[in-house]
Amino acid sequence: MENGAAGFESILAELHGHLGKAQRIGITGPPGAGKSTLVERLTQEYRQAGLTVGVLAVDPSSPFTGGALLGDRIRMERQSLDSGVFIRSMASRGSLGGMATTTGEVADVMDAFGFDRILIETVGVGQSELDVIRVADTTVVVLVPESGDGIQVMKAGLMEIADVFVVNKADRPGADRLRQELEVALGVRTGSAYRHIPSHHGVDLAGARGQTPRSREAPVAAAWEPPVAATVASQGKGVDELVVLLDRHFAMQAEGGELERRRARRLEQRTREVVERALRRWMWSAEGPKAALDAALADVAAGTVSPYGAAARIVRTLTRSEDR
Amino acid sequence: MENGAAGFESILAELHGHLGKAQRIGITGPPGAGKSTLVERLTQEYRQAGLTVGVLAVDPSSPFTGGALLGDRIRMERQSLDSGVFIRSMASRGSLGGMATTTGEVADVMDAFGFDRILIETVGVGQSELDVIRVADTTVVVLVPESGDGIQVMKAGLMEIADVFVVNKADRPGADRLRQELEVALGVRTGSAYRHIPSHHGVDLAGARGQTPRSREAPVAAAWEPPVAATVASQGKGVDELVVLLDRHFAMQAEGGELERRRARRLEQRTREVVERALRRWMWSAEGPKAALDAALADVAAGTVSPYGAAARIVRTLTRSEDR
Repeated sequence: MENGAAGFESILAELHGHLGKAQRIGITGPPGAGKSTLVERLTQEYRQAGLTVGVLAVDPSSPFTGGALLGDRIRMERQSLDSGVFIRSMASRGSLGGMATTTGEVADVMDAFGFDRILIETVGVGQSELDVIRVADTTVVVLVPESGDGIQVMKAGLMEIADVFVVNKADRPGADRLRQELEVALGVRTGSAYRHIPSHHGVDLAGARGQTPRSREAPVAAAWEPPVAATVASQGKGVDELVVLLDRHFAMQAEGGELERRRARRLEQRTREVVERALRRWMWSAEGPKAALDAALADVAAGTVSPYGAAARIVRTLTRSEDR
Repeated sequence: MENGAAGFESILAELHGHLGKAQRIGITGPPGAGKSTLVERLTQEYRQAGLTVGVLAVDPSSPFTGGALLGDRIRMERQSLDSGVFIRSMASRGSLGGMATTTGEVADVMDAFGFDRILIETVGVGQSELDVIRVADTTVVVLVPESGDGIQVMKAGLMEIADVFVVNKADRPGADRLRQELEVALGVRTGSAYRHIPSHHGVDLAGARGQTPRSREAPVAAAWEPPVAATVASQGKGVDELVVLLDRHFAMQAEGGELERRRARRLEQRTREVVERALRRWMWSAEGPKAALDAALADVAAGTVSPYGAAARIVRTLTRSEDR
């Protein structure tokens, strides 16, 4: 899938009817937030519950072929021997289309294979990473007290995509302040000063302290609003509560029909991407409008036409033939 | 240009015949390497030499519209009042095609306007940033002693694109070690243990100490090999030497025909990008094969076909009509 080997799309087409069982959990956040450790602990937690886990570590900004930083061999060594866990690292090279498309396709393979949970971890928090994480059902944004000013910078983008916030390394100074800041920012975003998480789920959220007594009285039909969990992933603290939150998000999405809507949007997006990728491939292949393109490139090189004139000419040709 | 406003491509087509005067200098490196400060000092240096300067700060990984971090107002405050300097910040939003294409197009506008030097600064060092920086004639990679392990990680990608390395904050501990590491890595890459920079240019490179007596005897026709300069940008130290290196790289490229070759490659790349962008736009526009696409999306949503089957069908339609 990653390398776009011959026939990969026909395999994906075959798998298409066997998707949707897995919960896809995207995990993003700045470098050093402890995402990898959190992924390892989450995997342990799921395994103890008898669930199988696919892990997909994505580094869209890495110009490398995968090896060193995220190499399958050096991360999660213990778990890599467990047949209920599959770990795969991807860097941007070898990706035929966009990284987000390829990530979704690899997640599809894991889903069709039967994994119960698919953890998609990104290395950074740039635009490419945000695109990648959009293939998830549930998005976790991991921050640490040390993120400091960075949070101010990243807020807008992360606020939009987060279903659950995690303040990791919550035993360090500044963790409470960070959580408060996040809760204030979330309140500003949704136009309310307090989080409204329905209390009827009966979960004791040790890590999600944003709830004031007042918010406990919120109507049960309230939409999901991102809670802020606290973890110390290196010691496994708070990970069980995080799992509860993730399960709850998935269940609530499924109940309310939001999961279906989100997956339908994703499917439409995927179709658009695949159409564009196929068209791009055809364009520059031997079967494509090669003569026209070569002539255009030659004219641009000769200086008789600008790239824009050449592009307009080619698109006109294609458009006209389409009209016939 | 950035927003793809109506008619922007016809303006670019008009400008096409008036390009090539400016030296486009790409400046990249990890966050905190002091790139912005270096850009400010380089601008000062060029202004003192009577040259005009366009500055283009690009943040491909930022999901923001520009404002806070790179806001034109807060950076280079002194220089923003100088009519010989134009500063523009770009974030990824609002970019119609890829960020690299848009960056090249904005640089074209600056070039056509008559700026002598165009400094293109990226915020990070991910794949998107490497793509952006490829629009430059001369690429500067800025590192600091603190980069530490990061260098190991980034080496491969950066080694390939750097025309000049800068060890900034060179007064800090570890600067010499970093420079040595870089020089060793460069030696490994080019298969020689020493840098071979022709001595006939007669420049005293205070900041490029990689030259051993042996390398001074290298043949004068040797190809450009990236020197390692040392600066303390915050104090303006070493910036004059860096300017000399940049001028020298540009001159040497022009003499050897490499500048022309590089620009020709860039022009071909631009044409491909513009063709793909135009085709993508046409595809999803009212004039495009809308009926076929809508039908495909509906079928995918209904579950009667996979995204891959739908894509294959659409491309087949386009291909056939092209054959007629």
